Parts: sequence; structure tokens; C-alpha cells
Amino acid sequence: MKKFAVILAGCGVFDGSEIHEATLTLLAIQKKGSEYQCFAPNIDQHHVINHITGEEMQQTRNVLIESARIARGNIKDISELNVDDYDGIIFPGGFGVAKNLSDFAFKGAEIAVLPSVSETILAFWKAKKPIGALCISPAIIAKVIPNATLTIGSDAGTKDAIEKMGAKHKQTTHGEVVTDAENKIVTTPCYMLDANIAQIEEGANNLVDQIHQL
Amino acid sequence: MKKFAVILAGCGVFDGSEIHEATLTLLAIQKKGSEYQCFAPNIDQHHVINHITGEEMQQTRNVLIESARIARGNIKDISELNVDDYDGIIFPGGFGVAKNLSDFAFKGAEIAVLPSVSETILAFWKAKKPIGALCISPAIIAKVIPNATLTIGSDAGTKDAIEKMGAKHKQTTHGEVVTDAENKIVTTPCYMLDANIAQIEEGANNLVDQIHQL
Repeated sequence: MKKFAVILAGCGVFDGSEIHEATLTLLAIQKKGSEYQCFAPNIDQHHVINHITGEEMQQTRNVLIESARIARGNIKDISELNVDDYDGIIFPGGFGVAKNLSDFAFKGAEIAVLPSVSETILAFWKAKKPIGALCISPAIIAKVIPNATLTIGSDAGTKDAIEKMGAKHKQTTHGEVVTDAENKIVTTPCYMLDANIAQIEEGANNLVDQIHQL
Repeated sequence: MKKFAVILAGCGVFDGSEIHEATLTLLAIQKKGSEYQCFAPNIDQHHVINHITGEEMQQTRNVLIESARIARGNIKDISELNVDDYDGIIFPGGFGVAKNLSDFAFKGAEIAVLPSVSETILAFWKAKKPIGALCISPAIIAKVIPNATLTIGSDAGTKDAIEKMGAKHKQTTHGEVVTDAENKIVTTPCYMLDANIAQIEEGANNLVDQIHQL
């Protein structure tokens, strides 16, 4: 049995973690007979988006507290994450990765990653433990790990941005994973494509399967 | 191909829809080759709960707007739901069912169900279209449909309350469904039991399978 850290970024595709990707990542881990522990940074969200209108709401929400909705309360501050306790780390997608864990949504290739997140990614990489990233999450991996090979699907603008950071991009479609065996990085596009929820399950399952083999 | 209305009650187990149950209901429908449309009432939540501490937060959130997080923005007001457009209706669980769609969490057997919700349930029942309910949702079905046979798992207090409403209760464990063929009602306990996320998937799949056969 392996144990994985799953990093959340809020609760909802437009300002937090994408809920289907996060839920189906947890399900895939459980169905492999492994365990998960959710983590998130204890910071305010960049903003709160009304998921019907797409407009910003005049509220303040905390990333850790909102992420706890997906984790049913069982979540820890990412500052408490000790790489020695886990066999790998997985980042579901959602705009929260590009707005809360980093500023990729606003700065593109000029991205800055939240220090607690970049330090955690580096710790797993240095320990030669696998790193999984769904959807837009490969953008932060591209910034932190030099010369990573990964996929964000087929979006030209995002591909250009991560290549400017020094990553090698492979185009993929629904359910496909790209494995960078040297860096132990596994990525899959999920909702970076126009996908349905069954295709998200396929991507999450394939990523979690592959992570177990590294 | 069939089309199902899925009724949400917010976003998060303690004050809204249980996220895993809602997500895995949508996934089960998609994997049967059917379609779903999410709905929720356009009302304020009873309250907002910090999902780490369990304490109430001084915020106001709208059930329809928060439910849109699970639905990725594709959601409609339950007042727009026309029974003629759907082959059945499914209620995932979560405290939102007992706090927003009804007051079961506070009143038990003396429950009142939100009129837009009870009218919708009755419309499907009168049209002889199947009704699915996960977790705590059978409590609102018990109130609205006379003499329904259903399950909320094995919790004695909840069982007593729904029997006081006139329902017949059958005890179940993980993944099991109870089918009331006469009323076309299918229920499964999910997180009313101490369950893991793979057991929720099993319950949602079995319920959606059964709904397709009615």
C-alpha cells in the first residue's frame, strides 16, 4: 500500500481545484488500495468567482478552508507536509492552481509559484518520488523542475508558455498520460480539453496507475 | 439514451451537497451513456460551515451559485425544471439536503421540505418516472411520497424519524440499494455509513444502474 499527498487549491474550477478532477484522483488512489492525504496552502484565494456568471464576488475565502470541502474536513496545511511520509504527490487541476498556487493565469511564462508549493515539489523530485499533475497543474511543474517533459493537452497558448519555461511538451488527447521517467513526472490533460466527466475519470485512473509504477 | 435531473443543495458535505456523492452520481450517469442536467434552488444556504473546524462562518452563500461549482457552471434553477424533459431525478446527499432543501437536520420527523423541491418530487412520482436518493436524501422522499420503502443505511435515529413520517425502512450496508418498484424510488446509504470514496462510487453506480431499469 502506498500513500499519496494530494494538493488542493480551493473548491471549484474557476477559482479553486476542479472538483471532478480532485474527486476522481482520490477515487483512483483508493481503488488502487492506496491511501491519500489532502493538503492545501493556508492563504486567501486570489478571488471568488460566481460559477454561473463568471463574475468576481465581493468575498474573501481561504484556500485551505475551501479545499476542506473536497476533503470532507480531512486536510492539512501544506507547510506540514513531510516528503518522508509519502510515496508521491499529485496535483489535480482547476484555475486555483494558476491563481492561488501560482500566478500563471495572470503572468503566463513569467509565473511565480507559491514558495510552500515549489519547495514541496522540489522535495519530492530530489527524493526521486513521483509527481503527478492533471489539467493546468503541469504549468507549475514546468516552472519548478528544469527540462521536464509533460503535457497540457493541445492548447497552443499554454503549450508555448510552458515551453518558454524550458519544459518539453507532448500533445495528448483524452485519457492519455505523458511520463517523464527520468524526473518521475506523470501528466494528463483532463479538462484542458473539452472533456466529459468519464474522460476525466479515465485520465485520473491512467495517471494514478502510472504513478504506482514509478 | 436517457436524461436525468440531478438536484444539488450547495457544495460541501456540512452545508451543501456531498461533493463525492454528487460527482460520482454525474459520473455514473455519463458512463451509462445517459445525460444529466444539474438543478438547485435559488435561495440562501441555511448557513456556511468551516469544513475544518465545523464552526459556522459569518458569510452568506446562495445554494444555486455554490452548487454551480460541482456542475462547472452548467446548472439551472429548480423552478425551471419541467418533468416532461427528463427520464428521472436523482438527489445526492450531504447536510445541504437536510438544511437547505428541507429542515430535517433541525426538525427530524417534523420536517418541512422546500416547496419547489417537494413539488418536483411529486411531479416525477405522478409521472411514474424514477426517483433516486443517496445518503440522507431519502428523508425528503419519505416526507413527500406516502408509504415509500427506502434506506438510509443503519442509523437508528434517522431510521426512526423517517418511519415516523410513514416510510418503511430497510437496513443496508455499503453499495446496497433498496428499490421501491411500486413508487419507482431507489435509495442507497453512501456516507450515512462510515464509508470510503470507492464505496460511494459503488453505491452511486448501483443506484444509477437500477434507475435505468425502472
